[in-house]
Amino acid sequence: MDALLKTIEILGIFAFAITGIIEARRKQMDIIGTYSVAMVTAFGGGTLRDVLINHYPLFWMQNYNYPIMILALAVLSIFVLRKSISFSKPVLMILGLLDALGLGLFSALGTSYALSAGVYWFNAVLIGVITGVFGGVMRDVICNEVPVFFRQSQLYATCSFIGSLVFVLLVNFFPGEPLIPLFSSISAAFVLRVISIKYNIQLKF
Amino acid sequence: MDALLKTIEILGIFAFAITGIIEARRKQMDIIGTYSVAMVTAFGGGTLRDVLINHYPLFWMQNYNYPIMILALAVLSIFVLRKSISFSKPVLMILGLLDALGLGLFSALGTSYALSAGVYWFNAVLIGVITGVFGGVMRDVICNEVPVFFRQSQLYATCSFIGSLVFVLLVNFFPGEPLIPLFSSISAAFVLRVISIKYNIQLKF
Amino acid sequence: MDALLKTIEILGIFAFAITGIIEARRKQMDIIGTYSVAMVTAFGGGTLRDVLINHYPLFWMQNYNYPIMILALAVLSIFVLRKSISFSKPVLMILGLLDALGLGLFSALGTSYALSAGVYWFNAVLIGVITGVFGGVMRDVICNEVPVFFRQSQLYATCSFIGSLVFVLLVNFFPGEPLIPLFSSISAAFVLRVISIKYNIQLKF
Repeated sequence: MDALLKTIEILGIFAFAITGIIEARRKQMDIIGTYSVAMVTAFGGGTLRDVLINHYPLFWMQNYNYPIMILALAVLSIFVLRKSISFSKPVLMILGLLDALGLGLFSALGTSYALSAGVYWFNAVLIGVITGVFGGVMRDVICNEVPVFFRQSQLYATCSFIGSLVFVLLVNFFPGEPLIPLFSSISAAFVLRVISIKYNIQLKF
Repeated sequence: MDALLKTIEILGIFAFAITGIIEARRKQMDIIGTYSVAMVTAFGGGTLRDVLINHYPLFWMQNYNYPIMILALAVLSIFVLRKSISFSKPVLMILGLLDALGLGLFSALGTSYALSAGVYWFNAVLIGVITGVFGGVMRDVICNEVPVFFRQSQLYATCSFIGSLVFVLLVNFFPGEPLIPLFSSISAAFVLRVISIKYNIQLKF
Repeated sequence: MDALLKTIEILGIFAFAITGIIEARRKQMDIIGTYSVAMVTAFGGGTLRDVLINHYPLFWMQNYNYPIMILALAVLSIFVLRKSISFSKPVLMILGLLDALGLGLFSALGTSYALSAGVYWFNAVLIGVITGVFGGVMRDVICNEVPVFFRQSQLYATCSFIGSLVFVLLVNFFPGEPLIPLFSSISAAFVLRVISIKYNIQLKF
């Protein structure tokens, strides 16, 4: 179980860090700016989660090599990504998919950690949403200087909410089998998010 | 005493949540955006307070049904408030009064909690100001995209400061009688805030 | 050692608080806005550090007279600095020097505190950067409404990073002699920052 959660965590960190790096290079940031955005995107949600549920040391202090991993990734990006790369359709698609993946992974993970910490189920869902959404929102605020989240969310938080809800429901029906709720929750948020981007779905009310 | 503080807390949460919902609907946000703004406005100040004085579980985790209350309120608002409602004078007045009420209630409450946690009196006053002001500032930043607080505060923080100061002073003069400092503190902040809006008073230096 | 760290802390607080006060007066803020900006600049980095490494009470609660010191400074500034003072070259230079000094002092201090708390060396460097940089970034966000940090950082974070790295390295070579790593770290960050402002050096990749 612990190994499974850690794998999900590392995948989510990589997915989010890469979206942060791409966005930062797009905005012509230097290596330090790029590293900062990657760190905020990858660790923002989990750090806020850990502070809210009083879980210390923070997950990136406990797994103390996470920040060095992101540094390696940011340094690597200098050689791979030019500053102000022109954004072709496939790059934007990869960006969207990685962001959706990170959203799904972190929402399920955040909900799981919150439940383990004894948080009430509805609030655990909220913690899942915060974990999944906060890093990406901070990335967008820093890189676009407009908090789009609150305007045209394209179901961003909604996908995270549904994914977290799926986890809470299934974890009750399949106690002792963490794979089923985790996989279902991640898939639900990921697929919904991809569909909502593809068809530009927005809430009407 | 505990029942009294909890009543004040619930009243403050409702007052602030409603201001958040009205502002969000005014900005044509969907239900998830509206719920997010309501949550940030109602819980922002108290959450920052609890993190600063290391009080866990956070007040909205301890009273685990608070977030569901706000959800019910936000869902209800869809039927009552149209998106982009035209703002008549009475609506703006109600908005101002509720915000002033929340400011007074949360300032007194934050100061009281900080003193109980053994915080030095002047810093307890500051914690009171942070509790009273932070949620509303975050709401305005998200909804207006301009942190007006630092420009034309119209005594916003000042009213909170005076209310918190009144609490600290009176709690020394009337030990064992929490009603007097609480009621005086809330009234002071509320009345000063209403007067400062009505006559558009601003600090000159 | 403790007295030394406290001296550095107070110097850093004064340096940052004064930059916050000058910027706030420049933006025509009133006394409450000025005090708020001074507090955020002086205490922002250290508060975030203490929350991240779970060090309670927060440093400005433990040294409970810090906030009153800043209040006295802000009140004093009303008599000394007119609102919207015209900014001569020497004032801008003093502002830059004080900010560079605060950056150096807080970076070394943050790294030192993080190491004492048992944080892994690379993450202690990051905590040093957060401590040194966060207050100034918040001041600039509030006063300029543009987070310049991520655009033209002029090595802002880089100077803090190098200063913190110097501390971590030297503290291993000179155990039991805190003066050498502290002084070297502060000097490195300060001198690099002053040079980077003077010659407008920016990272090219």
